Amino acid sequence: MIVVFTGGTGGAKLVQGLQQVLAPDRLTVIVNTGDDLDWWGLHVSPDIDSVLYALAGLLSSDRGWGVEGDSFRCLERMQQLDQPSWFSLGDLDLATHLTRTAMLRAGKTLSEATAALAAKFGLSARVVPMSDDRVATMLHTEKGTLTFQEYFVRERHQVDVCGVRFEGAEQARPAPGVIESIECADAIVFAPSNPVTSIGPILAVPGIRDALRRTSAPVVAVSPIVGGAAVSGPAGKLMEMMGWPCSIAGVAKAYEDFLDVLVVDESDEREAARLRSDSLHVVCTRTIMRSAEDKQGLARFALKACESSTQRRSTKSGVILSAATAQPS
Amino acid sequence: MIVVFTGGTGGAKLVQGLQQVLAPDRLTVIVNTGDDLDWWGLHVSPDIDSVLYALAGLLSSDRGWGVEGDSFRCLERMQQLDQPSWFSLGDLDLATHLTRTAMLRAGKTLSEATAALAAKFGLSARVVPMSDDRVATMLHTEKGTLTFQEYFVRERHQVDVCGVRFEGAEQARPAPGVIESIECADAIVFAPSNPVTSIGPILAVPGIRDALRRTSAPVVAVSPIVGGAAVSGPAGKLMEMMGWPCSIAGVAKAYEDFLDVLVVDESDEREAARLRSDSLHVVCTRTIMRSAEDKQGLARFALKACESSTQRRSTKSGVILSAATAQPS
Repeated sequence: MIVVFTGGTGGAKLVQGLQQVLAPDRLTVIVNTGDDLDWWGLHVSPDIDSVLYALAGLLSSDRGWGVEGDSFRCLERMQQLDQPSWFSLGDLDLATHLTRTAMLRAGKTLSEATAALAAKFGLSARVVPMSDDRVATMLHTEKGTLTFQEYFVRERHQVDVCGVRFEGAEQARPAPGVIESIECADAIVFAPSNPVTSIGPILAVPGIRDALRRTSAPVVAVSPIVGGAAVSGPAGKLMEMMGWPCSIAGVAKAYEDFLDVLVVDESDEREAARLRSDSLHVVCTRTIMRSAEDKQGLARFALKACESSTQRRSTKSGVILSAATAQPS
Repeated sequence: MIVVFTGGTGGAKLVQGLQQVLAPDRLTVIVNTGDDLDWWGLHVSPDIDSVLYALAGLLSSDRGWGVEGDSFRCLERMQQLDQPSWFSLGDLDLATHLTRTAMLRAGKTLSEATAALAAKFGLSARVVPMSDDRVATMLHTEKGTLTFQEYFVRERHQVDVCGVRFEGAEQARPAPGVIESIECADAIVFAPSNPVTSIGPILAVPGIRDALRRTSAPVVAVSPIVGGAAVSGPAGKLMEMMGWPCSIAGVAKAYEDFLDVLVVDESDEREAARLRSDSLHVVCTRTIMRSAEDKQGLARFALKACESSTQRRSTKSGVILSAATAQPS
């Protein structure tokens, strides 16, 4: 089993690539829920939805979120009715939130509701929220404490952040299957998501970081930082706020206690050479994903890098990609 | 003040006509909520919505319910996600239900939420639910006990009904303003709605029927039965189930303890003559409403009939329509 840790947009692209190169039942995706929000009375899980839509081939390629070809008629009417409208839900997208919310109200957990939605979208991959308990990413900013979506969408991340807190994380338990999947993984992949606000909340759930430190599976991360800047979003600024450099070294720092392999962009080759050590394998490739081929190529590269790391550590034989390439897309 | 009792489709047309011929602040509409349902976790009030949309000029003229020019993309996706889909909510319509549900969850009563929606739709008329308490119209049928929407929409009223019950009515209180508006009305108009399942639930709320019996305002009803059959819907069958004839006499029977004037279609002239009595004035006109002119014409006719009834009873002077015609559309 290949286990991926991811947030939304950027991470979802690599998850798509992994789905293409892996046998259908070999992918488990553990998703950030620190961005979840109650919107118009509905439980919205933006990162879970991005992953579900990406895997179902429904993700809008223009927007990077929501459903391809969606309309926004309900949103426009909500605006006319003076309802909050800074967070956009499309008409098709609404069906996902209505369905999830109905399931949660009927007593299902978030992981049960997510599995049910994944099945309805016809997915074979397992999509698992980091926790069934509520964890809220809160940012301390010059405008006061904001939820992640207030910061990211409403303020377009144009406010200074001086701190981040994962509210509820201390009491949260990993969702069923999260720890087990880390323990039994053939490889663990960190998608190129924001280490602070996409991966940070997952690692803040007690037990998950420990399981990553303990696992014998190789852990590979794809850097969301290319050429000293985030590919998209506020990852750079937030990493600096955490005291990590806005560079591939900062990514290595964020995951230092469990990372085996760091996949970085070829433009970062020089810094990669400096970063390489006995405990950290750093490999370069093209990491910008525009086409389906880019996504598959990067997915294959990351898995191969895990395999060689495994061979170096001699803990497992090179089965990671062989099983993978048995079912190319 | 002119006070109208109404259900959805048919009644909403007359309410539109009344709005056109009355000064903006002279119309109070008391609406059936026995059809309300929880759908996709949202509080849907079909009759209130029909009245709001009719008054706002948004009601679909083709369908007779929902918003003109609405789309059904969310509904189609809900269907694909195996969610219940026999009750149609349009994408624009959804905004109304999301807004109402959010207000109710925030602690507003249904009448407060309705008033807020009416204001957002720019209405001057007062739209008041019959009660803020939950009353559910339940039909005992050959397929078991059904809610009104299960009977009317899901089963397309093609099942035999042997009884009707207004669940919760005994404990329900009239919404704020309902009794007062009956007491202070210049005239009270019963729209051509189903006497059993549209007007029946309103009259089942303790206190409302008594107030109608006591009021000095003339009470006029427009018959929903034309030529011995309902203009639309199952009113005929349901009236017979109640032991009332499916005729204008049946309508008179349903309202016998408070009705002063019955407006019937010109095609029912012969029966009208038989029905006339000292206590019931029966007047004929064209009651089928197709055009805006039809609606206004019928509204004016009903108000004039009230006026003459008032003059007959000499309790009030003929101010009903004079104020009305002061503000023609």
